[in-house]
Amino acid sequence: MQCDMGAIDDTLGSAERYAEAFGESDLPAPPARRLAVVTCMDARIDPYRLLGLSLGDAHVIRNAGGIVTDDVIRSITISQRKLGTEEVAVIQHTRCGMCGLDDGAFAAEIEADAGERPGWDPGGFGDLDESVRESVRRVRESPFVPRTDAVRGLVYDVDTARLREVA
Amino acid sequence: MQCDMGAIDDTLGSAERYAEAFGESDLPAPPARRLAVVTCMDARIDPYRLLGLSLGDAHVIRNAGGIVTDDVIRSITISQRKLGTEEVAVIQHTRCGMCGLDDGAFAAEIEADAGERPGWDPGGFGDLDESVRESVRRVRESPFVPRTDAVRGLVYDVDTARLREVA
Repeated sequence: MQCDMGAIDDTLGSAERYAEAFGESDLPAPPARRLAVVTCMDARIDPYRLLGLSLGDAHVIRNAGGIVTDDVIRSITISQRKLGTEEVAVIQHTRCGMCGLDDGAFAAEIEADAGERPGWDPGGFGDLDESVRESVRRVRESPFVPRTDAVRGLVYDVDTARLREVA
Repeated sequence: MQCDMGAIDDTLGSAERYAEAFGESDLPAPPARRLAVVTCMDARIDPYRLLGLSLGDAHVIRNAGGIVTDDVIRSITISQRKLGTEEVAVIQHTRCGMCGLDDGAFAAEIEADAGERPGWDPGGFGDLDESVRESVRRVRESPFVPRTDAVRGLVYDVDTARLREVA
């Protein structure tokens, strides 16, 4: 990697080598394990390795916090209605930047810098287990998600890689 | 895997073996490569292997389509303002279920089944390259995202694993 290369340039080199080794594939779009995973964008979580997923196995939905927002409901709705998934695993994690984030203070900080306040809620939460339970509830209570009997909530410990079920 | 086990039960067994091999880690939350990747939830995309990312390298944001919604802007805003990322790669892909999805027909289908229409736009698009460019524009033009000089848009071919830059 040259000193003046950006992160994306560097990943593009890796992507070329990946494609060379990849060959050809004709995997279908519907996930083989009929599973959708919702988790945080956090860099310390690799859902494929963690859950033993192979390419083609599961949808992976990620945002700041791994919280179930309207956009996550949109994704799960499409996942189930268009691509046949039946189970949902919501995985939030220890040492998350969203845990303890003061939404009001953060929105004010953005407004001071950007000149306008975001229309979205930043998504901070005070209690990790309760946040997972709240997210699981949002999936279970969504009128748009047809299959809600296998929605489970877990906490991932980024230091030990242990998963703990909380909902 | 027993016949009566669900997909999540099966992944939990894999997660235990992953944790045993994992040991201990004290990776910090800020991504080492200062990169945020936005891509589709599609089961045929493994961003870590594709981009040669190690644990701790990059934020990974995923939804149906890999389209830049308000929730993605929220995630990128937090990624840059709270965790120091500087580059954004938006990666959509060939044979995406969202390409060609008729939003009106899908919303009507949901309404017929659920009894109410979703408040969110399903996110279908007609042209893949143009969808990537539109998503890149949304990041670049967001008043909340402070660093927009390294926002790039790519198309991933799920059959050959080739990446093509379009914005």
